[in-house]
Amino acid sequence: MSRIIVFDTTLRDGEQSPGSSMTTAEKLRMAHELADLGVDVLEAGFAAASADDARAIATIAREVRTPTVAALARATESDIRAAAEAVEGADRPRLHVFLATSDIHLERKLRIDRNICLERVFEAVGLARELVDDVEFSAEDATRTDIDFLTQVVQTAVQAGASTINVPDTVGYAMPDEIREMVRTLFERVPELHDRVLSVHCHDDLGLAVANSLAGVEAGARQVECTLNGIGERAGNAALEEIVMALRVRRDQWKHTTGVRTERIHRASRLLSHLTGIHPQPNKAVVGSNAFAHEAGIHQHGVLSDPETYEIMTPELVGASATKLVMGKHSGRHGLEARYRELGYHLSPEELDRVWNDFKALADRKKEILDEDLISIFHRGLMEALPRHYAVEQLKVSCGTTPAQARLLVSERGGLPREAQAEGDGPIDAAFAALGQTLDFNVVLEHFEIRAATPGEDAVGEVNLRARVDGQTFTGRGADTDVIAASVEAYLHAINKAAQARRLEATYLARTADAW
Amino acid sequence: MSRIIVFDTTLRDGEQSPGSSMTTAEKLRMAHELADLGVDVLEAGFAAASADDARAIATIAREVRTPTVAALARATESDIRAAAEAVEGADRPRLHVFLATSDIHLERKLRIDRNICLERVFEAVGLARELVDDVEFSAEDATRTDIDFLTQVVQTAVQAGASTINVPDTVGYAMPDEIREMVRTLFERVPELHDRVLSVHCHDDLGLAVANSLAGVEAGARQVECTLNGIGERAGNAALEEIVMALRVRRDQWKHTTGVRTERIHRASRLLSHLTGIHPQPNKAVVGSNAFAHEAGIHQHGVLSDPETYEIMTPELVGASATKLVMGKHSGRHGLEARYRELGYHLSPEELDRVWNDFKALADRKKEILDEDLISIFHRGLMEALPRHYAVEQLKVSCGTTPAQARLLVSERGGLPREAQAEGDGPIDAAFAALGQTLDFNVVLEHFEIRAATPGEDAVGEVNLRARVDGQTFTGRGADTDVIAASVEAYLHAINKAAQARRLEATYLARTADAW
Repeated sequence: MSRIIVFDTTLRDGEQSPGSSMTTAEKLRMAHELADLGVDVLEAGFAAASADDARAIATIAREVRTPTVAALARATESDIRAAAEAVEGADRPRLHVFLATSDIHLERKLRIDRNICLERVFEAVGLARELVDDVEFSAEDATRTDIDFLTQVVQTAVQAGASTINVPDTVGYAMPDEIREMVRTLFERVPELHDRVLSVHCHDDLGLAVANSLAGVEAGARQVECTLNGIGERAGNAALEEIVMALRVRRDQWKHTTGVRTERIHRASRLLSHLTGIHPQPNKAVVGSNAFAHEAGIHQHGVLSDPETYEIMTPELVGASATKLVMGKHSGRHGLEARYRELGYHLSPEELDRVWNDFKALADRKKEILDEDLISIFHRGLMEALPRHYAVEQLKVSCGTTPAQARLLVSERGGLPREAQAEGDGPIDAAFAALGQTLDFNVVLEHFEIRAATPGEDAVGEVNLRARVDGQTFTGRGADTDVIAASVEAYLHAINKAAQARRLEATYLARTADAW
Repeated sequence: MSRIIVFDTTLRDGEQSPGSSMTTAEKLRMAHELADLGVDVLEAGFAAASADDARAIATIAREVRTPTVAALARATESDIRAAAEAVEGADRPRLHVFLATSDIHLERKLRIDRNICLERVFEAVGLARELVDDVEFSAEDATRTDIDFLTQVVQTAVQAGASTINVPDTVGYAMPDEIREMVRTLFERVPELHDRVLSVHCHDDLGLAVANSLAGVEAGARQVECTLNGIGERAGNAALEEIVMALRVRRDQWKHTTGVRTERIHRASRLLSHLTGIHPQPNKAVVGSNAFAHEAGIHQHGVLSDPETYEIMTPELVGASATKLVMGKHSGRHGLEARYRELGYHLSPEELDRVWNDFKALADRKKEILDEDLISIFHRGLMEALPRHYAVEQLKVSCGTTPAQARLLVSERGGLPREAQAEGDGPIDAAFAALGQTLDFNVVLEHFEIRAATPGEDAVGEVNLRARVDGQTFTGRGADTDVIAASVEAYLHAINKAAQARRLEATYLARTADAW
């Protein structure tokens, strides 16, 4: 059994997909969860993208100890120095330098020829090695790169000191046979690769990211780059949970292991959904809500006779426990802590104080508190300790067959409370209109979604929204059994983030391509 | 270029996944859309499952002309006769008979030995052939079946007259190499297969359904069974759109064509989401909302230089048009019709009347009417012509920092209007509580979701819910710029379905396994 290195890029390639952006505090929380999940390498961000990204990487490098912490950099001096600085505090820092190598990218995007490309690879990897021992080089768009030139690129990166060479299918174009062939050819032509790690990084545009990753492993790749829930640019990256479970369920075929503690997969998946507001579709493999559900009568009969007739993995193996009714308003603090422990959450005394208060408040309003409620309560408190510049003190909404009206009183930290009243098309629209009147921001709502975070009639509604506030995008979320209250909470969450950003006067580095 | 037969099972294997059930009218609408999409075989249902299923198949068989219409049957006389009766009206009917063949299924579910299994295959296929010319046989759990026995099964089915032999990966367990090997072996050992069609049917439990389907095609399979959006049991079936686009985008490799009109993929995908309330995750390949979005600054630069640097297919190729602002309250009826035509919707005069009215009503409330709004308006009207047993005449809801209250007046067809008032935890809870008081049904809400069907602040909220009403599950949906109104509409939609079912006194056949 050889060990496959799981390189998680949820916080980099995943986070840069639309609607998935996270704050530093959220990224840190997710990074801890990924470390507990057992990933080997954690790509924390792209340092040169913004001051925020660099800060998030540095925080994770300092605080998350088990995995190697990687930062992405283009093949330029400024990018590489920014990345090196960001991972400085890590026990095992890695620089991940990339440069496109396909003719289409060289000619139409970079406007350089192959010789200059090779020179840049050599210089960039060399510089990275001066700053950090562990350097990975990625040949962007490798699968559309001429194999002879790709061989030269890989040789150059190896000579310059890269210990991991990654050959991404950047556009999600390759077929499994092509990946297998590419990896085999590289091993034949560049013998030094046997002492390095060859890595694959696949995108899912044609639904083949997992198959392509496994084809790479079959041909000798020992690192797979992937994201939780398969999030990422366009159709996303190869899903970590699918690769890991394919290797696990079919160990008879694969003879490879990973360091992932599979029983924490669902927990990590749920946290990611909670932080981004993006939920896997019900029929998503391994982590979808239907992945272990058997609807058809014919299957149910089989599953009742013997689960193995239709189940190739148990829900327990990936931590997908069935809903259990556990608690109510008469449950005690000790029982609550015990139930969290059974669910895999070991709470600190401060965390227990917080969830206990939220639990009591919910128990007053909801008859049956389910495991999902407890998980929701726990995750809810993971919002960063954001200063609440604004808070709603009073809210009154009326609606129905007549136009909706909202009245509210908003308090501002260090300011006077403000009152407003507005009509709207529906109660949420009215409430947002009234909020808009009291606040000194230009808000354009881009995305708005309400879902039931827990099953049942008295479900907790979870609102996720994305808004452009003064030209910059912020996400907000709120959770409450009352959807109007949850919506207002989500709106203010985004506004409070914007207020904080305004205060910090965060200077975002221009995302221009001048460096090219 | 050889032609691959696209066998769509969205309405059978897809529909039997939790939360995906559709009424007969909805299935018929979807079947027309799938026919327009260009699928070759349309599996319309499992006739013996229920009287409703049988009715839906018969309706589709009568009314949808282009594709072959198939009905599923277990290998029993009653199932086969029910299926044959259901597809009777089709131009090209097909019976799809299945029997499990793996030892685990034979021993633990069917409790029969291999000889009896072979006998049943022979008898069942023979009987089916007496009733219908076109018979497909599926060896359920083929990928876990001993290959020598599977060979015997296939030989038997061929001898009995099956023209299509399907070897499903029922539990989503196989690796691409295994599918390739299985298909190759069958072709070697059963030469008659060269005059029949070998088919693959893959599930996505390990994220490999598309790769497995393509591996089957590579080895000689000429039919792929798949569903739109990849819906289906557990992790779902192979996604039609991914298989079709892999063959299309990589025709340089495949040399196979399909009859699918790819530019209708998004339209069909959206209709399915609308009917089931289940939406693909944003990063779903081909049909996800982010599938063509480029977030990262570095990619944006490339895409602006030349789309091909990151795009392997254009959005137009799959009918994913960018949002355009098209209409407002001053737009005319002719302009509306023209815009629908540009979006690919050719409206009948009755349809135009209906969407025109809805369009005017929406234009009074919403500043900018987007393409998404038009599509939403169009799909909304596709709800079956369900008798409205109950309707809400008046509704008044108030909520905020005080407890939510709802008052409403509900009219019943042929009955007296009823008034009710209730408090609740949030406005929706209060409205549902009041509705519950006026209605004579036992309602347990199982699932509730609100999403913005269109972008922007004055988005149309779409509510999808699933409820057990008197012990039977119904879905309901509503759409309105006011989420409370949309919620009430969705609730009544489910209740009106239940009222209709009560009236029809639909006798559901027991889904027992006695037939085995």
